Amino acid sequence: MDMEINNHIRSQIISDALPYIQKYHNKIVVVKYGGNAMTNAELKEAVMSDIVLLTEVGIKVVLVHGGGPEINAMLKRVGVESKFIGGLRYTDAETIDIVKMVLAGKVNKELVSALQLHGAKAMGLCGIDGKMIVAEKLEGDIDLGYVGQIKKVSTKPILDAIAGGYVPIISTVATSADGQCYNINADTAAARIASCLRAENLILMTDIAGLCQDKDDPSTLIPSVSVSDVPYLKNTGIISGGMIPKIDCCVEAVRRGVRKTTIIDGRIPHSILIELLTNEGAGTEII
Amino acid sequence: MDMEINNHIRSQIISDALPYIQKYHNKIVVVKYGGNAMTNAELKEAVMSDIVLLTEVGIKVVLVHGGGPEINAMLKRVGVESKFIGGLRYTDAETIDIVKMVLAGKVNKELVSALQLHGAKAMGLCGIDGKMIVAEKLEGDIDLGYVGQIKKVSTKPILDAIAGGYVPIISTVATSADGQCYNINADTAAARIASCLRAENLILMTDIAGLCQDKDDPSTLIPSVSVSDVPYLKNTGIISGGMIPKIDCCVEAVRRGVRKTTIIDGRIPHSILIELLTNEGAGTEII
Amino acid sequence: MDMEINNHIRSQIISDALPYIQKYHNKIVVVKYGGNAMTNAELKEAVMSDIVLLTEVGIKVVLVHGGGPEINAMLKRVGVESKFIGGLRYTDAETIDIVKMVLAGKVNKELVSALQLHGAKAMGLCGIDGKMIVAEKLEGDIDLGYVGQIKKVSTKPILDAIAGGYVPIISTVATSADGQCYNINADTAAARIASCLRAENLILMTDIAGLCQDKDDPSTLIPSVSVSDVPYLKNTGIISGGMIPKIDCCVEAVRRGVRKTTIIDGRIPHSILIELLTNEGAGTEII
Amino acid sequence: MDMEINNHIRSQIISDALPYIQKYHNKIVVVKYGGNAMTNAELKEAVMSDIVLLTEVGIKVVLVHGGGPEINAMLKRVGVESKFIGGLRYTDAETIDIVKMVLAGKVNKELVSALQLHGAKAMGLCGIDGKMIVAEKLEGDIDLGYVGQIKKVSTKPILDAIAGGYVPIISTVATSADGQCYNINADTAAARIASCLRAENLILMTDIAGLCQDKDDPSTLIPSVSVSDVPYLKNTGIISGGMIPKIDCCVEAVRRGVRKTTIIDGRIPHSILIELLTNEGAGTEII
Amino acid sequence: MDMEINNHIRSQIISDALPYIQKYHNKIVVVKYGGNAMTNAELKEAVMSDIVLLTEVGIKVVLVHGGGPEINAMLKRVGVESKFIGGLRYTDAETIDIVKMVLAGKVNKELVSALQLHGAKAMGLCGIDGKMIVAEKLEGDIDLGYVGQIKKVSTKPILDAIAGGYVPIISTVATSADGQCYNINADTAAARIASCLRAENLILMTDIAGLCQDKDDPSTLIPSVSVSDVPYLKNTGIISGGMIPKIDCCVEAVRRGVRKTTIIDGRIPHSILIELLTNEGAGTEII
Amino acid sequence: MDMEINNHIRSQIISDALPYIQKYHNKIVVVKYGGNAMTNAELKEAVMSDIVLLTEVGIKVVLVHGGGPEINAMLKRVGVESKFIGGLRYTDAETIDIVKMVLAGKVNKELVSALQLHGAKAMGLCGIDGKMIVAEKLEGDIDLGYVGQIKKVSTKPILDAIAGGYVPIISTVATSADGQCYNINADTAAARIASCLRAENLILMTDIAGLCQDKDDPSTLIPSVSVSDVPYLKNTGIISGGMIPKIDCCVEAVRRGVRKTTIIDGRIPHSILIELLTNEGAGTEII
Repeated sequence: MDMEINNHIRSQIISDALPYIQKYHNKIVVVKYGGNAMTNAELKEAVMSDIVLLTEVGIKVVLVHGGGPEINAMLKRVGVESKFIGGLRYTDAETIDIVKMVLAGKVNKELVSALQLHGAKAMGLCGIDGKMIVAEKLEGDIDLGYVGQIKKVSTKPILDAIAGGYVPIISTVATSADGQCYNINADTAAARIASCLRAENLILMTDIAGLCQDKDDPSTLIPSVSVSDVPYLKNTGIISGGMIPKIDCCVEAVRRGVRKTTIIDGRIPHSILIELLTNEGAGTEII
Repeated sequence: MDMEINNHIRSQIISDALPYIQKYHNKIVVVKYGGNAMTNAELKEAVMSDIVLLTEVGIKVVLVHGGGPEINAMLKRVGVESKFIGGLRYTDAETIDIVKMVLAGKVNKELVSALQLHGAKAMGLCGIDGKMIVAEKLEGDIDLGYVGQIKKVSTKPILDAIAGGYVPIISTVATSADGQCYNINADTAAARIASCLRAENLILMTDIAGLCQDKDDPSTLIPSVSVSDVPYLKNTGIISGGMIPKIDCCVEAVRRGVRKTTIIDGRIPHSILIELLTNEGAGTEII
Repeated sequence: MDMEINNHIRSQIISDALPYIQKYHNKIVVVKYGGNAMTNAELKEAVMSDIVLLTEVGIKVVLVHGGGPEINAMLKRVGVESKFIGGLRYTDAETIDIVKMVLAGKVNKELVSALQLHGAKAMGLCGIDGKMIVAEKLEGDIDLGYVGQIKKVSTKPILDAIAGGYVPIISTVATSADGQCYNINADTAAARIASCLRAENLILMTDIAGLCQDKDDPSTLIPSVSVSDVPYLKNTGIISGGMIPKIDCCVEAVRRGVRKTTIIDGRIPHSILIELLTNEGAGTEII
Repeated sequence: MDMEINNHIRSQIISDALPYIQKYHNKIVVVKYGGNAMTNAELKEAVMSDIVLLTEVGIKVVLVHGGGPEINAMLKRVGVESKFIGGLRYTDAETIDIVKMVLAGKVNKELVSALQLHGAKAMGLCGIDGKMIVAEKLEGDIDLGYVGQIKKVSTKPILDAIAGGYVPIISTVATSADGQCYNINADTAAARIASCLRAENLILMTDIAGLCQDKDDPSTLIPSVSVSDVPYLKNTGIISGGMIPKIDCCVEAVRRGVRKTTIIDGRIPHSILIELLTNEGAGTEII
Repeated sequence: MDMEINNHIRSQIISDALPYIQKYHNKIVVVKYGGNAMTNAELKEAVMSDIVLLTEVGIKVVLVHGGGPEINAMLKRVGVESKFIGGLRYTDAETIDIVKMVLAGKVNKELVSALQLHGAKAMGLCGIDGKMIVAEKLEGDIDLGYVGQIKKVSTKPILDAIAGGYVPIISTVATSADGQCYNINADTAAARIASCLRAENLILMTDIAGLCQDKDDPSTLIPSVSVSDVPYLKNTGIISGGMIPKIDCCVEAVRRGVRKTTIIDGRIPHSILIELLTNEGAGTEII
Repeated sequence: MDMEINNHIRSQIISDALPYIQKYHNKIVVVKYGGNAMTNAELKEAVMSDIVLLTEVGIKVVLVHGGGPEINAMLKRVGVESKFIGGLRYTDAETIDIVKMVLAGKVNKELVSALQLHGAKAMGLCGIDGKMIVAEKLEGDIDLGYVGQIKKVSTKPILDAIAGGYVPIISTVATSADGQCYNINADTAAARIASCLRAENLILMTDIAGLCQDKDDPSTLIPSVSVSDVPYLKNTGIISGGMIPKIDCCVEAVRRGVRKTTIIDGRIPHSILIELLTNEGAGTEII
């Protein structure tokens, strides 16, 4: 940090954050955590620090995580091939076991540990605990195995954790009514959890600058998209490829009552703070 | 069930359980779950059913589990050799990762799921969540790697889960103050948790009949041992081998305020109910 | 109890009660207590024991009692003739005084005492306390004196007792708005109290097997009657005599929101447990 | 009421009661009710009205009653002879049954009814309910049958009733640990209950003016007696006869923590209000 | 007080107040305090004593005060002329400053102090605290400066004070949305506060006997006026001059849900007690 | 604000405040507000903004204010001479009236209004409300009139306001047991209030840089002073003049349990934020 930024400037900057803190005070913000922000050690530190800060200023953060790279690594190690169909992982019985273990037993607990090192208290949960996420087999033309679609979200375990002073950290494996485990896409789960919690904001961390006119040119970033603009943007191909399901999650969340959703660039340190506590925000908001 | 056991006998037997239900009502009972009772499907069903019944009649059950066979299987699968020194698993960095995943991500979540199928609500926790179990490296002559000894147990996550109407199911991996994960012996952890919760009873499920005068002859079962008898029984070799650490856990738990500890035969269906709700009890109690 | 019924069978029978315990957990069950089950010492012991057990497993029992034989004995002793018109006691000023004394002062307090000897805490109440049952003179062709019909039930004293950890035991004498005491039929009062409490079950203990095709042959027991069947059963004379008002109470209770009512055979020990905690139930249910 | 006492004088008199209301606000006052104030209809009306008023101004009144005349009448009616030894009723098995019925079933419920007619809500209790008064056989040279001495008072049922907004009205029959009913002297019971409730005041209503120098001359009333004066007053015969046990109750209550006890003249209308809400008080206070 | 009014008469008078105490128990009564009752030391003492008594008997009094004479005195002292237009004070920037200081800083705190000397606990509030009274500039033909009309009343600070055991004493200066202070007529504010609190009674203390047929002859007092009579009474000139706005306040309060409003003669000692606790009431009620 | 301070720097600075926010979270900080920070409009804005920000991040701020310049102005206006003896205002009956009015009626309400404009909710209190500050005449050689010394502080009104979600703003006029108003030095009152609230920090805002080796050279600022150093610093004259009573307040507060006290330079914008949320702090701390 530049020495010349003195305490007066510091205090002014902190002071400038006040209206944003007031806006989100006691509100729930769901953060879908993934990509570089999760694999890069320095970025991860910054995310952990940001979440603790948001917690301290009275914002209720719920962290939902995926863990694709770690799942792939473990599958490879045990000699199971990773197969993807239409962007979704084909999940047979052997795979769902590995997915569950890696997400709920490794990634989740490492995040709990990391957040606690920064001074918060965290509670690791998965969709099986307290039947938080009840799912059924994803319907569709192609059989994806144990890939599930959400039937019901029970917010009690999440709200209990918040009430107990913990940051809930959620692995998106779910249970069916008869106890079968299902793999749930983390973006989808985050969107649905945000809806059920009536969250103020849903933040999806990605490895891109946001939605851009030209996806190869970050300077063409579209800062704000209305739900009603989405069909047009799809037709013109501005929303395309991997952006389609992400934007669809956001649209669905907004329709079900989330006030605002944002696709932010997880490669920038403290992008969550920039989004929530400064006047510019970050990435593309869908409202 | 024999047809000739009619409803009158049924109702009498249920009625006879009353004084035991009264004794344990609203009390905490910690059950260390392991061995055949965990690997045999029928026995597992009976244990799940028993825990739900105890919950319904007002007994607060806390389930602490190990998972040796599943850990071994996964280690073998990823090509890591299982090493045991003096009955404790040598746990290098690779092993602790597998231990954590298997216990907190697989065994734990399957138990949550199984209990919920029987009608209870369960919450899977590990020692990392909310810093429930803080550990440090186990001191000793031989370096066992990431095998920990418990420094502090925080009962808040457990009591929160009970207050929320959940049966807490606990994997015994712990965190150090600086966020390192440690493997904790499940018997030891169960005993310490029982102490900190001031449990009424600590039940260790094993694959033996209990403590026997002649360990090969179940008819020589010693139903009750006082803490003060233990040194004599060790000297005479009646307590020997794998029984030594189990009995030591029980003695330690009793000394720290648990009212009663019992080593029961997990191979008998409903042995937990027999221990808690009948006049004979099961296995060997240490008081 | 037969020695040959060993602990494994015992534990299995207890385990089998689980789904029934789950069904009634935290639900209110109103038991109208009377007949042989109240005059026979051994049966009375079994009833007391059953109620305590149900309380311990989380079922909220409310006991409503009559006391005809004791009232008759006291009336005889003070030289007042017992008169019955259409199954209802003619109740002059002198009689209502004796009824009140015997029910609220003798029978009620003896039941409180008996239940407490079995380990529960009980609170004796009558319809006058806290204006729990407000009544007016029963209208009809024949003047029955101080026989009342219920105008209003206040559940607060009952719910306060339950919340305080007591089993409420209720004598069915009522007060009018201007403070006059009225005698209320205990079956009727139990049915009305069950309705106002939105009870899960109303159990009327009688000295018969239940509703039978042939009332002299218990093997012709009708286990279940739907409210809509009742007119037909009355027309065919299967419901006749003293069964008419009892069945009418049950029908009324079901119509006002009680989930299930049962006429059970109080002459069988533990018939309440059989009804509530086994798969066969007891007597005749009206649903 | 004299027409000439105009509203200004009325409001001044009400205003003058303020310091006394403040003194007793939210405090418990135990009133032992008996004698003429209970048998004379007009006096009874005044007592009921007074208790309701005290309740409304925030004073927690607990009413403890006897019922000698009604017991005698009923005993006579059933042909049992009333026997008194040293002022205490000899109570055989037949008598205790009648005592219990008359006190808990008749007198108690009539008082509940009367108080409720004046606008309060009342809860009738006896020492058996919730094991409120546990007693054992009174030891002494002469066997008095089922006359008990108090071993323990549980204030929970009384405090529950107060918390529920009811005036507790208590019959002084008690239960032994094994469920036997005992007759307890109402003055003694009131004194003990007052002690256990840490009452601000214990008022014993009698049919005399209070303690007088010359018991036949009310003008010699002693308004205040210190506990330390009692031995001297006994020696000089000023405290004699039936006054001895009453004064002993008061002394015992003061020693166990009741702030003030008063023996008042129940023959004077509103004597309770005079005692509590005016500057003169009534009868003789023992402090 | 006349010596001849003995304790029996005293206790009877206190007893007669019971139905009125019951009527207002736990209800909110708003008292607009002003006029002679505020400037005459003896009358002020009586008012303070009355409010404490009402508080003790369970009536929730909210005191709303003006302070015209004290404001005039201070304005004179600082050389600002008091100007009144149509009965309302012309309030320039200098005047509003003085009004605020005198009401919220002097009169209010002296009332808090006086009430506390009589044994109550009081909390001084003004409309600015917690934005209790939000106002805007009074619209009208004539510009009255910082005279406000109420836009919104927040009852939270008042109810918080009551819940904390304090008598709320309220100065009627208000805040606009942008923080400007406004002077509010105290009668109007009391009426609006009473409406928002759903008060049982609004009492306006004045220096007249009430509404009289002939305003110069108190013997022609009209004890009760229905809201529907008001237009007629205005047409006939019986309601005229300064009575018009007072009666309008009452009518408005009744229309918005206050059960009863009364214009009482503050020159009579204890007129509040006479109104609330005797059968005659005082002054003129508008219902 | 310089345009070149981009969002990344902003988010880093906000992030850097985290440990300080964690330190003071849910802790009480008492701020004595006065001097230039109160008279300069821009500084006042910054203080209001800072307090709202601190409130939002979970710090419980209690604002204690003086108002010397406003008192002097009003005294001059009404023609009363301001007299000071040893730094304390001579306060006759006329003066205390003006002091009370200006502090509790003007300054206090303007601060409530200003804080509310920034988005917080505030509650104006003085030491008379709820008998928060009970004082008696200050003893000493010279009679200072109605200058008081604190006998007792009741924290209930302050804690009630905090619990209700308000920032308490306190004028330091007090009441004696017999209702006389006293003027209390605001530094002293703030220190005593901080002690009674067991505040984490007491901040005295002044018009100097802090305690300096050479009071005319801010570069000689002593950042931290231990209570044990104070006698030496007084002897050497470094603590002298007006600093003596301020330092004495701090020492007293630390001795009575306040964790830290700081004398800060109120002339610097956001000095409260600098003190509480940056690594340098501001002014001189006494610990």
